[in-house]
Amino acid sequence: MFPKLPVRIAVLCLVAGAFAVTFFFHHPKAALAADSTAPAYTTNGELLPPTNYREWIYLTSGVDMSYSPKAPGMQSHSSFDNVFVNPAAYRSFLATGTWPDKTVMVLEAREARNKGSINQDGHFQAGGVMDLEVHVKDEARFPGKWAFFSFNPAGGNGTLFPQTANCYSCHTAHAAVDTTFVQFYPTLLPIAQSKGTLSAEFLKDEAAAGK
Amino acid sequence: MFPKLPVRIAVLCLVAGAFAVTFFFHHPKAALAADSTAPAYTTNGELLPPTNYREWIYLTSGVDMSYSPKAPGMQSHSSFDNVFVNPAAYRSFLATGTWPDKTVMVLEAREARNKGSINQDGHFQAGGVMDLEVHVKDEARFPGKWAFFSFNPAGGNGTLFPQTANCYSCHTAHAAVDTTFVQFYPTLLPIAQSKGTLSAEFLKDEAAAGK
Repeated sequence: MFPKLPVRIAVLCLVAGAFAVTFFFHHPKAALAADSTAPAYTTNGELLPPTNYREWIYLTSGVDMSYSPKAPGMQSHSSFDNVFVNPAAYRSFLATGTWPDKTVMVLEAREARNKGSINQDGHFQAGGVMDLEVHVKDEARFPGKWAFFSFNPAGGNGTLFPQTANCYSCHTAHAAVDTTFVQFYPTLLPIAQSKGTLSAEFLKDEAAAGK
Repeated sequence: MFPKLPVRIAVLCLVAGAFAVTFFFHHPKAALAADSTAPAYTTNGELLPPTNYREWIYLTSGVDMSYSPKAPGMQSHSSFDNVFVNPAAYRSFLATGTWPDKTVMVLEAREARNKGSINQDGHFQAGGVMDLEVHVKDEARFPGKWAFFSFNPAGGNGTLFPQTANCYSCHTAHAAVDTTFVQFYPTLLPIAQSKGTLSAEFLKDEAAAGK
């Protein structure tokens, strides 16, 4: 697990508007998996883990991303975040520049290792999933249409982040498209630009940054 | 483009055993694209660019990876490498732990940007494709069964690396499975381990490193 879990969860929550799942290769029996890419829930509101998100559409990776300046001594380990989206939502985005109902975005974190095999510099991905979060669009179910869920990579269902969590307010205030951080998805940002679906909040941020 | 292209090409060639393609969103008319995921060639031996590799199976990303120690002043820009493989080859690997004939692996490089939007630390991916390489398994066509091709991201077909290029010898000497760097693909390495398909050369490297 991450050495500083609250910080890590906050970062993941903010990073990409994505997120969740038991890593099926390592935990085949960990949970009753959803059969398709549509979000499915338990009776008490937990999200069932999508089992095959590594076969969905890849959107981007980041390394050690943070929305706060780096504090001295805060970064003891490096990690990658990989973001995936269900294929139907991706195809809809290509056509419209925004996300349809039932979009599921998954963010997984993996160790960024420096030395290993013949690698001498930079970082590669190694080992199992360290953190998993899911960002789900389910318009009839959630007040703001979207919700974040956090999964324990060791298995089990996803726990809902309450609507008061700062991931919601930050995504609303800064995300490029429909509360998702499309500004960090290099193949989707040009589509949103051409379709005119960038959020007013994002355009305001960019204008303030002189872009 | 990369500031030090020969170095960059060498690194890409080594990094992942992957590689190539015109980025279809940006260059829809750049080349006569292959219709399927199978490799296709021009009459003079160039490789046609796979057009939709971003919808293939994602394997991993690295950042600033190098198989040589970092030299002072050598790294003026950071970049990510993303690796994709055609879905049929991926499914075969899940079943067998190695690659079938007609496997196509694509490596694309994108800028690793530090500041942008609300990001303050670490790196995210931004902009178009900076470099593209493809690693193709075509048993009847290439002496060592595999070949590397380099693409100009601005468009056009892929140029074959001659069999004397050091990517071939390095992949043969150090790659974990069938001349591909599965040691850097975190979801595939456990499969190769369980299927017993790790190369003798890789196991020798690991033993020498005390693993």
